[in-house]
Amino acid sequence: MIRRLFTTSSTAAHADLLNESQNGQRQSKPRVIFSGIQPTGIPHLGNYLGALSNWVKLQNTASPSDELLFSIVGWHALTLPQDPQKLREARMDILAVLTMYNPNHTELAWIFNCITPMGKLRRMTTWKSRLATSRNMGEEDAVDVDDGGLNLGLFAYPVLQAADILAYRATHVPVGDDQTQHLELCRVIADQFNRNFKGMEKLFPLPIQLNTPSKRILSLRDPTSKMSKSAPDTSSRILLTDPPSTIANKIRSAVTDSIPGITYDPVNRPGTANLLTILAACNYDNEDVQETAGRYVGKNHGALKKDLTEAVVELLKRPREKFEKLRTETGYLEQIAQAGAEKARSRSEATMVEVRKRVGLA
Amino acid sequence: MIRRLFTTSSTAAHADLLNESQNGQRQSKPRVIFSGIQPTGIPHLGNYLGALSNWVKLQNTASPSDELLFSIVGWHALTLPQDPQKLREARMDILAVLTMYNPNHTELAWIFNCITPMGKLRRMTTWKSRLATSRNMGEEDAVDVDDGGLNLGLFAYPVLQAADILAYRATHVPVGDDQTQHLELCRVIADQFNRNFKGMEKLFPLPIQLNTPSKRILSLRDPTSKMSKSAPDTSSRILLTDPPSTIANKIRSAVTDSIPGITYDPVNRPGTANLLTILAACNYDNEDVQETAGRYVGKNHGALKKDLTEAVVELLKRPREKFEKLRTETGYLEQIAQAGAEKARSRSEATMVEVRKRVGLA
Repeated sequence: MIRRLFTTSSTAAHADLLNESQNGQRQSKPRVIFSGIQPTGIPHLGNYLGALSNWVKLQNTASPSDELLFSIVGWHALTLPQDPQKLREARMDILAVLTMYNPNHTELAWIFNCITPMGKLRRMTTWKSRLATSRNMGEEDAVDVDDGGLNLGLFAYPVLQAADILAYRATHVPVGDDQTQHLELCRVIADQFNRNFKGMEKLFPLPIQLNTPSKRILSLRDPTSKMSKSAPDTSSRILLTDPPSTIANKIRSAVTDSIPGITYDPVNRPGTANLLTILAACNYDNEDVQETAGRYVGKNHGALKKDLTEAVVELLKRPREKFEKLRTETGYLEQIAQAGAEKARSRSEATMVEVRKRVGLA
Repeated sequence: MIRRLFTTSSTAAHADLLNESQNGQRQSKPRVIFSGIQPTGIPHLGNYLGALSNWVKLQNTASPSDELLFSIVGWHALTLPQDPQKLREARMDILAVLTMYNPNHTELAWIFNCITPMGKLRRMTTWKSRLATSRNMGEEDAVDVDDGGLNLGLFAYPVLQAADILAYRATHVPVGDDQTQHLELCRVIADQFNRNFKGMEKLFPLPIQLNTPSKRILSLRDPTSKMSKSAPDTSSRILLTDPPSTIANKIRSAVTDSIPGITYDPVNRPGTANLLTILAACNYDNEDVQETAGRYVGKNHGALKKDLTEAVVELLKRPREKFEKLRTETGYLEQIAQAGAEKARSRSEATMVEVRKRVGLA
């Protein structure tokens, strides 16, 4: 399963009931679905439930004519300081590198730079929160704050992201709500290119957000922030590689509250709500979290944590085994990565040939 | 001659007296000299005297161990609106495209984006004057002016330029004084990379400006601004393709002043000074402009313009013939361009292999 996650595949899986019910009807037009992840470490439970498991579901539920592209976007990781040795290891941890050596991404990003107004980038909340953080302001409306010390890569990041997506003329992008604004910018760029550089037909689709039942998993130690690869307290996250005893310890020490009984109340009981969210997500058929909470009326945190530990251990059992096995098969991974990169390159080259022609560079 | 201009060549020309006298001694260390031009139309006299003829001189005077890279940098042209069809023709007008499909430039530019502070780019006078122009302010201290409508490509331009230069680990760059600040930024970026990503030795040299006797040729109609490809009045510039009668007409109508006699006084007599500058530059051995002016004491503008017409016609005669001949040999040009691009790619690939390794992407 894990292996398939990291291949750029034109999947031939059959459309199943889930797909049909999500979309209301069979796909009339083939979708090109693009999704990327940064190679910055061993995936944790938040990555797994938030992105990776959705990739598997997408793969299993896509229509035979859909095209799925899952990639590891290395250049993006460079916008924050990275230790080269750690980044190199992380690349293998995350199993393979697909788009790394597809220079079409950065070439297209440059062309997009030339049609993207500075003002649009300045309005990105991701950028504004970087600004705020760099000033320790802690709020996101820091439009006029001095950005002199931040690198251009952080500012230009959404343009590279648009190039990642549009290099494959993707039509659907499964991302969380925190990426809605970036995807909106991606559509603005696609539309601007289509207007500036007309041809027989519009070159780029305006990609839409694919609403997958994505879970926002919070830190076990500070349930007001997301579970994160980089938080100093390692007990705040459960890694794909954690053995059952570690999982048990981390869940046992998870911050909750002293209110008796179990209720789902994200505002007043964020820690408890987070554990319920995870438990609900562990069920393959995505149980509604209120329903999960209903089963714990009259029970206590101990019971919830015990069941949660079992569920998480069970959820990660096969992925962990596969991961540990594949992790040692470096040659095999490199091979997969190269094959994926080759596919990605030739897929995007068709776009670039047309882009260069339309802008007058070929 | 023209043909050699546009090849990426590891020249084997012998070091001559000019080279030795310029540098005081024979080159002890081989130089890597990089220079680029944008493909935005038929070169004019300003391009020819300011850059192209210097390329020829550099080629003729370089030491056998020097490496010379002259390139046409298409991506840069996109920072300003371009008509695709015109850009396509301009590419052929400027004879060939060398770096166009060397994606190492945009890949390296992205990596440099991630170590280049926004503040440094905001201080570029080229950017500040764009800002001023977009606001019709006409002055260059517009730091705080709203840049929302300008595209990111204009802002990021100096980073791409640094990538052009450093992709070949160039040590010397023959550019005019208007590029001094960009080259300073290029050194800052090279130095930052060397500090962040250490290896057995520093990866990038800090390239220095090569002081060639570069001429700043002004508009014949408005001698307060540079001769430009894009000025609406075509009589403001002499093109490489202008026949002698056109050259004569343009020089005859050149704006000068009503002061009797000829003196070199750029401040009070910019038009007259510009004609003297061009005349001095037309001499292969680069006569000092004061000396040229000395020969016109007691003469009038008519005499100066007559001699200048003869000199310019003579200067452009062979380049024009070669240009017009080559302009029809599209297949041959494409062949030269491809061979140059191939050389450039493999030359820069050696740099990129090391860059990717050092940043942890390989």
